[in-house]
This record gives sequence, structure tokens and C-alpha cells, in this order.
Amino acid sequence: MTKSVWIKHAQLATIKGQQGPRSKEAMSELGLIEDGSVWLEDGKIAAVGTTAELEKKFADRSADAEVIDAKGQLVTPGLVDPHTHVAYGGSREGEFEKRLQGVSYMDIMNAGGGIHATMRMTREATEEELVEQTTKRLDSFLEHGVTTVEGKSGYGMNLETELKQLKVMKKLNAEHPIDLVSTFMGAHAVPSEYKGKEDDFVDYLIETMLPEVAELAEFNDVFCEKNVYTPEQSERILEAGKKHGLTPKIHADEIVSYGGAELAAKVGAISAEHLLKASDEGIEAMADAGVIACLLPATALYLREEAAQGRKMIDSGVAVAISTDCNPGSSPTVSMPLVMNLACISMRLTPAEALVAATYNAACAIKREDRAGSIEVGKKADIVLWKVKSYQELQYLFGVNHVESVWKNGEKVVG
Amino acid sequence: MTKSVWIKHAQLATIKGQQGPRSKEAMSELGLIEDGSVWLEDGKIAAVGTTAELEKKFADRSADAEVIDAKGQLVTPGLVDPHTHVAYGGSREGEFEKRLQGVSYMDIMNAGGGIHATMRMTREATEEELVEQTTKRLDSFLEHGVTTVEGKSGYGMNLETELKQLKVMKKLNAEHPIDLVSTFMGAHAVPSEYKGKEDDFVDYLIETMLPEVAELAEFNDVFCEKNVYTPEQSERILEAGKKHGLTPKIHADEIVSYGGAELAAKVGAISAEHLLKASDEGIEAMADAGVIACLLPATALYLREEAAQGRKMIDSGVAVAISTDCNPGSSPTVSMPLVMNLACISMRLTPAEALVAATYNAACAIKREDRAGSIEVGKKADIVLWKVKSYQELQYLFGVNHVESVWKNGEKVVG
Ligand SMILES: [Zn+2]
Ligand SMILES: [Zn+2]
Repeated sequence: MTKSVWIKHAQLATIKGQQGPRSKEAMSELGLIEDGSVWLEDGKIAAVGTTAELEKKFADRSADAEVIDAKGQLVTPGLVDPHTHVAYGGSREGEFEKRLQGVSYMDIMNAGGGIHATMRMTREATEEELVEQTTKRLDSFLEHGVTTVEGKSGYGMNLETELKQLKVMKKLNAEHPIDLVSTFMGAHAVPSEYKGKEDDFVDYLIETMLPEVAELAEFNDVFCEKNVYTPEQSERILEAGKKHGLTPKIHADEIVSYGGAELAAKVGAISAEHLLKASDEGIEAMADAGVIACLLPATALYLREEAAQGRKMIDSGVAVAISTDCNPGSSPTVSMPLVMNLACISMRLTPAEALVAATYNAACAIKREDRAGSIEVGKKADIVLWKVKSYQELQYLFGVNHVESVWKNGEKVVG
Repeated sequence: MTKSVWIKHAQLATIKGQQGPRSKEAMSELGLIEDGSVWLEDGKIAAVGTTAELEKKFADRSADAEVIDAKGQLVTPGLVDPHTHVAYGGSREGEFEKRLQGVSYMDIMNAGGGIHATMRMTREATEEELVEQTTKRLDSFLEHGVTTVEGKSGYGMNLETELKQLKVMKKLNAEHPIDLVSTFMGAHAVPSEYKGKEDDFVDYLIETMLPEVAELAEFNDVFCEKNVYTPEQSERILEAGKKHGLTPKIHADEIVSYGGAELAAKVGAISAEHLLKASDEGIEAMADAGVIACLLPATALYLREEAAQGRKMIDSGVAVAISTDCNPGSSPTVSMPLVMNLACISMRLTPAEALVAATYNAACAIKREDRAGSIEVGKKADIVLWKVKSYQELQYLFGVNHVESVWKNGEKVVG
């Protein structure tokens, strides 16, 4: 049994309150406790309140705990990253340099670069190699205050490699401090051998892949985009996944407005991703259906695209979550702190909304709000102590990883 | 005497080569040594070469040194930040939140916010308070691999406070590991009591301030911008500064194209800053006159402006340096690593150019290339070991502070 931990004298952003995904005013409710305290015991949160309250409650037991004086600094729930492609093989920094030296995207693709390079490197990597590479990324996530991460397959596009990615994530979920939540994304691109025969790949995915992968994943995601998968093909895949118990997610309206947001509402997706070009009707449909918008402002930055309309979505009643989109092509980063900063800078979320989007709403987007995303009694003791005095400073002093310490299941893993 | 330090088995980006500010192809010359070694002794760089070469050279002396095995990771010169307003009083995270909650800039200014708030808080702060606040920021710079920082006065706009800021920087230059280089920027804004009487303030600055501040600064900077100081007023200030031995710098063409780049060439400024709206003629004039462009992509990001045309400037023969612009209003960050990333992402510099812009060219912009900005024998032993395998990865894996260790004058100060 680990010793209890008592973090006291914090600006405690508990994020407690309304249950279920939050939008509008509820996204600003931080459940802030000034001079707050939280008591971690047996991997869970055992008590939350003002320091005075906990001093009373634990008057006899303070010697049982390691006491951390936060000195007025900010304490939040561990961050949750609800959308990554973290379990990939290889690295593409050479391609990044070539692009900046003026080589065209098409020339890079024709030379076997882009997603095909990652597909090849992921196919070639052994399970052990993938575990090793992904572990490094998860370690870095943890250093950035992230304690729960969703990860997608999708660099295999054949059954064997998709299974390998999912097994790697299962293994890491068991072995690594981070909780890793798995999504099957067989329809991440069109494999070159199926170009022009997308429907055949959809058949293959539904008939051959889904039955095999279903027990290794909780969610089923598809890249619904012009020249990739149509809304009709996407719907077939997502409905088939439901029969295997997989909850739908959709990469939607990233490049053009293509009805992805609308489809997310129609199939009852838990979240729709990217949404840079989501239509007004799509946003409205998502609000009505309670689909969470999972927005990826670091990807928009890296691709030099206008970020999604986060401000408008919240005001329209959509619950917004944010994520790194960690992947080797369009967002090679693990920095959820930067993503929160960008949510404020590029999408005009307030500092409070950005924090809710990176914790509670992010947990909702991967069905972990029963155990993560807020500081409430009985939840996992996933806690971050930040080197800043307030939740506003966390976003204002941008571009810096302000993490001082991280506890995962009550154990100190950083700082 | 400190023990020698021998860093071996590094990808060593020495940046050695051409003397003086670099543009065009010279900005890509990293002087890369694979399996490189550097020997630090008495605060200086004593030897640079391949690990094999240094093993031979120091065969008898390897026991004298602390040996650091870089394991193939990247080693660079300490970064140089050539443009900051680091010695300011107070903090404005509340204003940041208000803006995002929809309060207009004018309402904030009318309530005493914006630069006037910083002016007030800087005037009110004691020298000790300013030293304390600035020390924290410099500590954070160091953690981000920055070993030399330029700092500007300009939040006083009266003689007393300008002197206070400059004295604080002088003191910190002596006491803090970071080398702090001082710039007088009395003409940072128009003090409210001089609104509409800008020429009177220029007279006051030239006649009363310059003689007093000159011995505390090396550079003289002015905010040449529509509704602030005209090119004519700016020229008067900079020419007057020259007579006191101060080298001109200009905040130029940030908001509108206003002839600032042209003026920088005309007065022989060592650098022109911001340049978001610099004209083609201005860029050409800077190239001809050898004025360094000091570009601030984090500020552009924070203000949601299109970044400066770094790519075009380099191709036009302008030497480009980059900087955080660290200040409480438009760029509250110390992250030179993010600034390098943004130089690639937003300004299309290559990874090699971004590194030269943040080291050697940055040193040139504050006349420190004789001792900083590259790894060459005789220079200060200011060195960063990064947790990445290559200079490409340093920019590709963006948004993360990859610093593992920092040596300043041969002493380990981080890691
Ligand atoms: Zn994705
Ligand atoms: Zn400035």
C-alpha cells in the first residue's frame, strides 16, 4: 500500500459539478477552491475541500500522509488526451525538413513518404519496437501532465498490423502508468491496393477486420473526408462497429465541409474530430445530439490552417474537448499544455474552458468521466501540481510546460 | 577552478563558419560534426572535433574531466534571445482572461490596462521586486536552453523608472548565470501626458534621458509605428543615441508598413524588429545595409497575426534572427524552443536556419558573436544538450522543451 498524499494550500481546480459533457456556461465551472486540499489514498481521491476542512477531518491522521505544500500554486486533475495516434512506427523529421527546403508534398508522397512511410514503418516494426517507441511518447505525455490517453490503430490498414497496434496499446495500458484507451481506426486512409475500390476495403474491414479487432478496442473511428471515405461508407463502418460494441468516432470536416459533423449526430458518435470546416448545420446537429467536438488546434497550427471554431461551438451548445492529435505527419507533439494555450489563442476559449476541455470533457469523449477528468472523491488520484499561481496563468504564460509534479493513481510519477 | 567537462558522442551543431551575420545559404551551415566532442575548460570552449580527435588530443587528461556521454543526442550552442522586455513589473493574466471573455481592447485600456498597467506596476515595483520577478523569468529562460538574453527598458517612460529597469538588468547580468545585454527603449510608447505632444517627449528623451541612461545600455531602440513615433522622430532619437555610443535598433513595420525597415537601413541599425508588414523595398534596403531582421513569431501567434516573411527575407539576403519578444502584453513566454518551431512552421525556415537564427545570428544582433552563438575554441562554454537525436527532430517534435542539460560558462546550470 502506498502512503497517502496530502496536497494542501493549492488553488484547486476540481472541475466538479454537472455530470456529462459540458457546454456553454458549464464549461467555465472549475469548482475552484482557494487554499484547497486534496487527500490521495489507495490510488483514489479520498477527500477534497479547503485546507482548513481537511485539517479538521484528518487531524488524527496527518502523520500518515506525505504532505505537499502547494504554496498557493494551481492543482488540477491529470489532463486527458482523447485523440492520438501514439502507437506508430518510425519518425518523419527528414520529411519535415524536405518540405521546408521546398520539396512538394506530391514529390514526397511519390517517393514513398507521408502516411505511407508511417504505414510501412509501423508494419515493419516488431511489437517490442512499437512498445519501446510508444513508451517514450507516453513518458513525455506524463511529463506534460497527461494521465489518460486515447490511442488509435490505423497505420496498418491490414489486419495483422492493426492487431499489432491494438495489442501494443493493451500491453502499455497494463504496464505504463498512463491509462491508454484504444480505438480501432482501420479506415484511416485508403490502402494503395484499394485505390478506386474503397467499397471493397469497407467490406473487408467490416467482414474480416471488425470481428477480430473488436475485443481489443472500445471505439471505432473513420476518416470521413473527400477522396477518402464518403459519409455513406463511413456510416456503414460505424454502424457495423456498433454491432460489435464499438462506439463511433469520426474524423470529420477537416479539409472540406463534407457532412461529417451531421453524420456524427446521425450515428450517435460520442465525438467528432477536427471539424475545421464543419457547417453551421453540422454544429447545430452535434449540439442537439450531444456529440462532443474534439478539437485539435496544434494540428491546425502545424498545417497552417485556420483553427476550428471552438468559441462558436461552445456558444452553440456543443461540448468541446481538445487534444494533441499526436501523430507523425500532422502533429508530432505530446504537449497538452500547448494545446490548451492554443485553444485560448487560436480558438478563443477562455482559460477556464480550455482546462475543462482538456480534463472533464476530454474524459467524456472517451467514456472515462466516471474515474478521470475531475478531482472528486472516489475518482482516480490523477493530479497535477503546476508551477503557476492560477488557472489563468497556466494559459497566459504560453508555450511553457508548467508541470511541477504529477501523481498517477496516487503515486508520484513526475517531479 | 571548475573541473573540465568533456561532452562526447554528440551530434554537434557547432554553427562555426562565416563571420558576421548570415543570410542565404550561410544560414543553413551548421558545421555539423557527427559523433562530435567538445571540451569545456575554465569557462571557455577549449577544443572541438570528432570524439576520436578529442580522445587522441586529451589521451593523458581524460581523468581531469567530467565526461558526459551524449549518446548521439544533439548538442548546440546556448541559445541567444536578442529581443526581450524581461525586466517588467506585475503580470496581466487577468487581462488575458477578460479579452477571451469578450471584453474589448479599448475597454481594457480605458480601465487602465494594457501597457499602461505594466508601466504602472513597473514604476511601483522596487528594484528588489523587479530583480526577484526578472530572476524567475531568467531561470525559466535557462531551463529552455537560453544563455544570453537582451533586455529593454521602456516600461518607465520617465527617467527614474527607465534607470531602475536598466540598473536591475545590470545587477542581474552580474548575479545571474545568464548574460543580460541592455537596451534603452525610452520611446516604447507615448506616455499619456505627452499624447499629441510627441515631439516634446522626443526632446525630453534626447536632452534629459539619453545622457543619464547611456552608460547603462549598449543599444537604443524605438517603437516606430503609426500613431506612436514617426520615422522622423525615430531617426532623431536613434541619431542622438549614436552620439552617446548607443547602437540603433528599431521596432519596425509591426502593425502597418511605415518605412521602418527602410529607416533601419538608413540609420545603420544593427537590427530591425517584428517587420510583419515590411515592404519589399524595406527588405531590399535591409539586405543591402546588412541590417539583421529580428523576427518574433510567438508574438504573431499570440496576436493572431500573419508571421513575418522570414523565408523571403533570407532568400533576399537578409540575415534573420529570432526571439521570444518576452513581454507581458503581446508575448508572455520565454520559450525559445517554441520560437524555433514557429520559425519553421509559420515562417518556413528550415530546421538548420531556425537554429542559426536562434544562436549565431541572434548573437550578431546584440554584438555577442565574438563570445557566444557558436561552439568554437575560445568562446564561452555555453552549451545545450538536447533530448533529441538530430537538429531536425528539435524542430519536428514541436511544442516540447527538449532541453536535457545546460552549461553556462562551463558550469552545469540545468539538468
Ligand atoms: Zn486523428
Ligand atoms: Zn519588443
